Amino acid sequence: MALIVQKFGGSSVANRDRIFNVARRVIETFDKGNQVVVVVSAQGDTTDELEAKSKEISASPSKREMDVLLSAGEQMSMALLAMAIQELGRSAVSLTGWQAGMQTNSNYSGARIKKIQAERIWKELDSRKIVVVAGFQGINKYDDITTLGRGGSDTSAVALAAALHADVCEIYTDVDGVFTADPRIVPNAKKLDDISYDEMLELASLGANVLHNRSVEMAKKFNVNMVVRSSLNYNEGTYVKEVSKVEEMLVRGVARDNNIARISICEVKDAPGKAFQIFSLLSKKNINVDVILQSIGRAGTKDISFTTALDNLDAALSVLNENLDAIGAKEINHSEDVSKVSIVGAGMVNNPGVATLMFEALYDANINIHMISTSEVKISVLIPKEDSDKAVRAIHDKFNLGK
Amino acid sequence: MALIVQKFGGSSVANRDRIFNVARRVIETFDKGNQVVVVVSAQGDTTDELEAKSKEISASPSKREMDVLLSAGEQMSMALLAMAIQELGRSAVSLTGWQAGMQTNSNYSGARIKKIQAERIWKELDSRKIVVVAGFQGINKYDDITTLGRGGSDTSAVALAAALHADVCEIYTDVDGVFTADPRIVPNAKKLDDISYDEMLELASLGANVLHNRSVEMAKKFNVNMVVRSSLNYNEGTYVKEVSKVEEMLVRGVARDNNIARISICEVKDAPGKAFQIFSLLSKKNINVDVILQSIGRAGTKDISFTTALDNLDAALSVLNENLDAIGAKEINHSEDVSKVSIVGAGMVNNPGVATLMFEALYDANINIHMISTSEVKISVLIPKEDSDKAVRAIHDKFNLGK
Repeated sequence: MALIVQKFGGSSVANRDRIFNVARRVIETFDKGNQVVVVVSAQGDTTDELEAKSKEISASPSKREMDVLLSAGEQMSMALLAMAIQELGRSAVSLTGWQAGMQTNSNYSGARIKKIQAERIWKELDSRKIVVVAGFQGINKYDDITTLGRGGSDTSAVALAAALHADVCEIYTDVDGVFTADPRIVPNAKKLDDISYDEMLELASLGANVLHNRSVEMAKKFNVNMVVRSSLNYNEGTYVKEVSKVEEMLVRGVARDNNIARISICEVKDAPGKAFQIFSLLSKKNINVDVILQSIGRAGTKDISFTTALDNLDAALSVLNENLDAIGAKEINHSEDVSKVSIVGAGMVNNPGVATLMFEALYDANINIHMISTSEVKISVLIPKEDSDKAVRAIHDKFNLGK
Repeated sequence: MALIVQKFGGSSVANRDRIFNVARRVIETFDKGNQVVVVVSAQGDTTDELEAKSKEISASPSKREMDVLLSAGEQMSMALLAMAIQELGRSAVSLTGWQAGMQTNSNYSGARIKKIQAERIWKELDSRKIVVVAGFQGINKYDDITTLGRGGSDTSAVALAAALHADVCEIYTDVDGVFTADPRIVPNAKKLDDISYDEMLELASLGANVLHNRSVEMAKKFNVNMVVRSSLNYNEGTYVKEVSKVEEMLVRGVARDNNIARISICEVKDAPGKAFQIFSLLSKKNINVDVILQSIGRAGTKDISFTTALDNLDAALSVLNENLDAIGAKEINHSEDVSKVSIVGAGMVNNPGVATLMFEALYDANINIHMISTSEVKISVLIPKEDSDKAVRAIHDKFNLGK
C-alpha cells in the first residue's frame, strides 16, 4: 500500500464526462489498496470567468477579495469530483485549502505555503476515504483565504505529497510527459523517461508549460518523487527526481518562451550601485527579471537590458520611468517582439561545445541573436519572435534530440 | 450611530450594475456614521446552475458535498460586492460563513444556526470597515461547510442582527414591503407600514414570498427589529416588530399558496395513536405537514387528510404507501389541484365574525371550500387551484383591505 497524491488540472475536470474520467482514474489507484489524495484545479475556464467578473467591478480589485473570489472555483470542482467518486461507489470527502490545513503567508494572489497541518487529511485517509483537496488555495494566520497564484495547484500537490510523505506525486496533464521540445513545433520531439529537478526547473521557467516552477522547487527541496503523465491514456509519464540517470545525451530539451518583453535602459551613468538601484526598484514591485545584459554605452555610460514576463511590462516601464532621474539614465526603450529559446541539460556546464553547437544551429538558420544568457543547466538566447519556431526546430535537429 | 444589518438577495446582485447599486445603498448608510454589516446571497441563478451541475453528476449527491458546492455561490457574490464598495472608495471586507463565526448544527442543506462567534466581525467593524458576510452558509463543529437551506440568507441576516445587537435588520427585496395581498393578483393591494412577528410568520408560511419563515421566528425569539423594503427605491418599507400598533383593521392581509398538495389516507382503523403513527413517519423523513383534517369515514374508520409542500409530495406518498399495512388504512389518494388561501391578523382570535366574513366572500364568488384550518392569527381554506386568484380578490374586497 502506498500513499499517492494525484493532481488534475482544470481541463481534466472541465465537464461532467471528464470529471467521471478523473473519478475512475482515482478509483483505479484506490482500488489497488493505495491511499489517495486528489488535488484539483477549478473547472476549465472558471478562473478566467471569475477574473472577468472582477474586472467589470474594478480595474485593480483588492487582492484579498480576488483570492476569496477565485478560490470559489476549486471549491466547486472539488465538490463535483467528490460527488462523482461517491456516485461510483467509493467514499470521498472534499476539503478546501483551509480545511486541508494549507497554511500560507499573506501574500494574496501569490501566497507561499508555510506549513500543512494535515490532521484532518490523515483522519479522512484513516477512515478509508479518497480525499479531494482544492488546489491553488490556502489560509493565512488571520484566517483569510489566500491563493498561490497561477499554476499553484501543482505546488499544492507537491506540498501535500511532502507533508504526507507520499510515495509519489502524480501530475496529470493532457500530454504524455516532458518532451525534448514542444511537439506542436517539433513533430519528432521525444518524450523523456526522466529528468532531474534542476533540468525540469529550467524547462518550467522557460515556458515548457508542463509543471509550475514553484512546484518543482518544492519537490526538489523535499525530495518528492513527481511524475508527469497524461490523464487520457496509460502511457508511462516522465519522472522528475533527484538525479536523472546518466545518459549520453547532454541536452535534454529545447524550450521557448514567447511571453516576454525586453526593456533597455540607455546611457546609465557608469557608477557603482546602478544595477542594484534598478533591480531593487523592480523587485519592490514584485517584478521578476530574467536575462540581464549590461553593455558599454556612450562615453562614461552603460546600457542595461533585461527581459521580464509580458504581464509585467507596463508595471516595469512605469516604475522605471518614474525614477528615470534618480537612476540617472537617458531613456528607456522596450520590445515585445522577442522570444527566448533555451536548451536545458544537467551536464552542460562542463561542455563548452554545447553552446557552440546551439549558436551554429541558429547561424545555419539565419537567425539573429539579441542576448545570450547561460547557467549551469541551460543556455538561453533572445531572438526575434517571428524566428522562434524555426529556432526550436533547428536546435532540436542539431542536437539530434528526436533520435 | 447605529449598527445596521442589510440583506440583499440574489437578484439584487445579479450583475455588475446591480452590485454597484447595492454598494451605493450600503455606502449611503455607512456614510451617515453607521456601522454596516451586509449579508448577501449568491448572484441571480448561480444556485440553480450549481444544482444543475450536481445533478449531472448524481441524482442524489451527498448533502455535505452539495453544501460545499452551493456555498461557493455566496463566496463569489460577497467578494464582488466588497470589490464594488472598495471601488467606490470605502473600506470593506468579505467574510464567508466560517470566517464570520456562523456556527450551525450538522444538518447539511438545512442546518440550524447554533451560535455566532462574532469576534472577527467586531474586529472589522472596529476598524471602520463595511463587513460583507455570505448568507445561507455556516460551519459545523467538524469544520465542515453547511448551508441553511433555501432562503437561508434572511435567517443569516437576522441571526447576525441578534448576535451583534443591531439596531435594525433591513431585508432588501424587489417589492416595497409586505402587502395586504399579492399586488399581481390584487391591483389595489396596500402596503402595510408594520406587522407583528406572528402575523408575518403566518404570511411567510402562507406563501407571501417576502421573508423566509425561519428568519421571522428568529427575529421574534431575539426581538430583532426587521424592516422589509425595496432596493430599487427609497420608500419606507414594512416594519416587522413585537407588537404592531393597534389598528382598526383586524385582518392584515390575504395570502395564497399554490405550491401545495393534499394527501388523504382513507378508512384508517379508528384506534388511538393513528395520527401519531402517521405524522411521525412523515416527520422522520423531514416532511412538514400543514392543514390537517380528520373526518369520520365508513363504519369504524376515519379519513385523515393533510396538506404538504408540493416538493414533498413524492416522498410523502412513498413513505405512506410503504407503511399502508402498518397504518391499517385502505388507500391513499392525493391532489395537486389545490390552493391554500388565508387571511392573517393578530386580533382575529377574538372576532368570530372574521371567519364568517371570509366564508361569505368565497360563497359570493361561488368557490367551494375543501378544508378549513384556523389559528390565533390566521384562517386558511383549501380551495380548487383554479379559483385561487378569484378567492384572494374576493376576500381582499370583502375586508376592504385596499382602503
